[in-house]
Amino acid sequence: MSEPAAPKARKHFPRGELRIVSPSGAVPEPQRVQIAARHLEELGFRVRIDPAALLREQRFAGSDARRVQALHRAARSRAAVVMATRGGYGLTRVLDALDYPLLHEAVSRRGQVWVGHSDFTALQLAMLARAGSVTYSGPMASFDFGAERVDEITRESFLDVVDSRLEAVGFECPDAPRSLDAAGVLWGGNMSLVCNLVGTPYLPRSRGVLFLEDVSEHPYRVERMFSQLLGAGVLQRQRAVLLGAFTDYRLSAHDAGYDLPAVVAWLRSRLREYKVPVLTGLPFGHVRTKLCLPHGARCRLVRDGSDAYLVFGHSHGGHHRAADPLDHAHEHHDPH
Amino acid sequence: MSEPAAPKARKHFPRGELRIVSPSGAVPEPQRVQIAARHLEELGFRVRIDPAALLREQRFAGSDARRVQALHRAARSRAAVVMATRGGYGLTRVLDALDYPLLHEAVSRRGQVWVGHSDFTALQLAMLARAGSVTYSGPMASFDFGAERVDEITRESFLDVVDSRLEAVGFECPDAPRSLDAAGVLWGGNMSLVCNLVGTPYLPRSRGVLFLEDVSEHPYRVERMFSQLLGAGVLQRQRAVLLGAFTDYRLSAHDAGYDLPAVVAWLRSRLREYKVPVLTGLPFGHVRTKLCLPHGARCRLVRDGSDAYLVFGHSHGGHHRAADPLDHAHEHHDPH
Repeated sequence: MSEPAAPKARKHFPRGELRIVSPSGAVPEPQRVQIAARHLEELGFRVRIDPAALLREQRFAGSDARRVQALHRAARSRAAVVMATRGGYGLTRVLDALDYPLLHEAVSRRGQVWVGHSDFTALQLAMLARAGSVTYSGPMASFDFGAERVDEITRESFLDVVDSRLEAVGFECPDAPRSLDAAGVLWGGNMSLVCNLVGTPYLPRSRGVLFLEDVSEHPYRVERMFSQLLGAGVLQRQRAVLLGAFTDYRLSAHDAGYDLPAVVAWLRSRLREYKVPVLTGLPFGHVRTKLCLPHGARCRLVRDGSDAYLVFGHSHGGHHRAADPLDHAHEHHDPH
Repeated sequence: MSEPAAPKARKHFPRGELRIVSPSGAVPEPQRVQIAARHLEELGFRVRIDPAALLREQRFAGSDARRVQALHRAARSRAAVVMATRGGYGLTRVLDALDYPLLHEAVSRRGQVWVGHSDFTALQLAMLARAGSVTYSGPMASFDFGAERVDEITRESFLDVVDSRLEAVGFECPDAPRSLDAAGVLWGGNMSLVCNLVGTPYLPRSRGVLFLEDVSEHPYRVERMFSQLLGAGVLQRQRAVLLGAFTDYRLSAHDAGYDLPAVVAWLRSRLREYKVPVLTGLPFGHVRTKLCLPHGARCRLVRDGSDAYLVFGHSHGGHHRAADPLDHAHEHHDPH
């Protein structure tokens, strides 16, 4: 990966308030949130852990109502950054109960950086679909900043976003076609969540670069999800499909050579007539090293040698430009 | 379960040709297909194993093209019954390549009984969505008839279908409301496949009794799938939701009391305002004892004591009446 080198000394202290919330699963190891708070304070944030962040009700971080209240509280707060502790499961249950205008005002007019991944994808997709909001697909408190040693690229990419310095990210991408130049909305995240929202009012109709990652899903299930995105016409209207990490699955003897590269080859064959390239290598997913990406922002995806670069539009108010409404909700798409 | 007792002596020999096909995964234990053939011959069928049924290409029972050809060959054959060896994964890949008018002609005009479950659900849903075809959600050769001892209820329910004697099936259903009387199309099957087809042209727009089962899906994933069916407006337009077996998942300490009954309670709370009852106890799924159900046929679901009964319309041409076209494809549904 050829991330531009970070400058030696950061000049952004203090960085403002960072609020930690738990919109999904209960936090099984609260000490990781304490470690995260310490790491984030060392980076110049005033860390505030939402009073409900460590609640538990069954497998959830508190009741649906408490988790919704915590998100609305964060949107109304002075926080510069709202970061999820972890994923798990829980956001899908509350998408109908969220105040999207309130959330959108926080991220668009007050420039709040909402950041997370995994189950957090459901919130990001819904905010993009309902209000055109730009959020960030990136690290979470427990998994990423709660580790004893924080991954350097993960940290620097996140700080680039917070400090409004993110203009482009590069990564090794040997399968990028020579002519690669795809422009549009950057959107996606956890593939199971993207597919789970197909057919609902919470799937953005965005057109651009769809990025996908997943964990603990056998390649046949990944392929079956691609098949749904094909059947729904979602992939055909993209300019590129960008694959992050697909991790923690197990192949068996029964697979007899069927594996993730076979799925990618199949997908490419399906998308060839639509001229949608399928690229691999995005450092994103359930892995330590992850970029922090503006979800819902305009981007351009280009190639330079064996690297690909995601280049982002000029920011206003310190953060990334939301895509044109025309790129989102108002088009009518016929799947065939 | 209060299945009506089978008559002592069956008078339906010979029963005609039964053709075994493999539209999905490769058969890892071909000897089970031989056992199934023997059992089915004892029941009076002339068993014909399709020449491609034991092929393997990676994890599939032959290439996509070979599997499609085998289905078309079955539709053109004189078989009275077309039975899948097993599920796995593979039908989703070929839904675009199937000749639905050909398949529909076989089941509607020539009364072929197409039967299977699990991955076979994808074919059943697509045939219902594209052509209004009635197929059968029931046993498969390898799992059900390939066992040393065939489950008696599974066998008798299947023979009731083949012999055109299926008028009603009953099962214990303690949670059926006293006033239960739901009429419409019986449809559904494997829940992962139903959800996988949301947003695609292969999900029927049927209204009636949606039955669902799944295997190896944690309750949170089952709930997330229900959430998709709610978000897409599918559940709200049913007269009843009927749950079969959900098997082979593992709860963990992290679930802290969250389990399948908690999911059902949550689903009921979501469907209360729509007055759609959620019933459990259908003998169907990845279990030995399964009913053979006419998928896509008109039914009425009623209660008698602690039992529920699915009652089917008069048959014509020996098999179940397809639902009115009005129950399927031509309605427009607003999800909110």
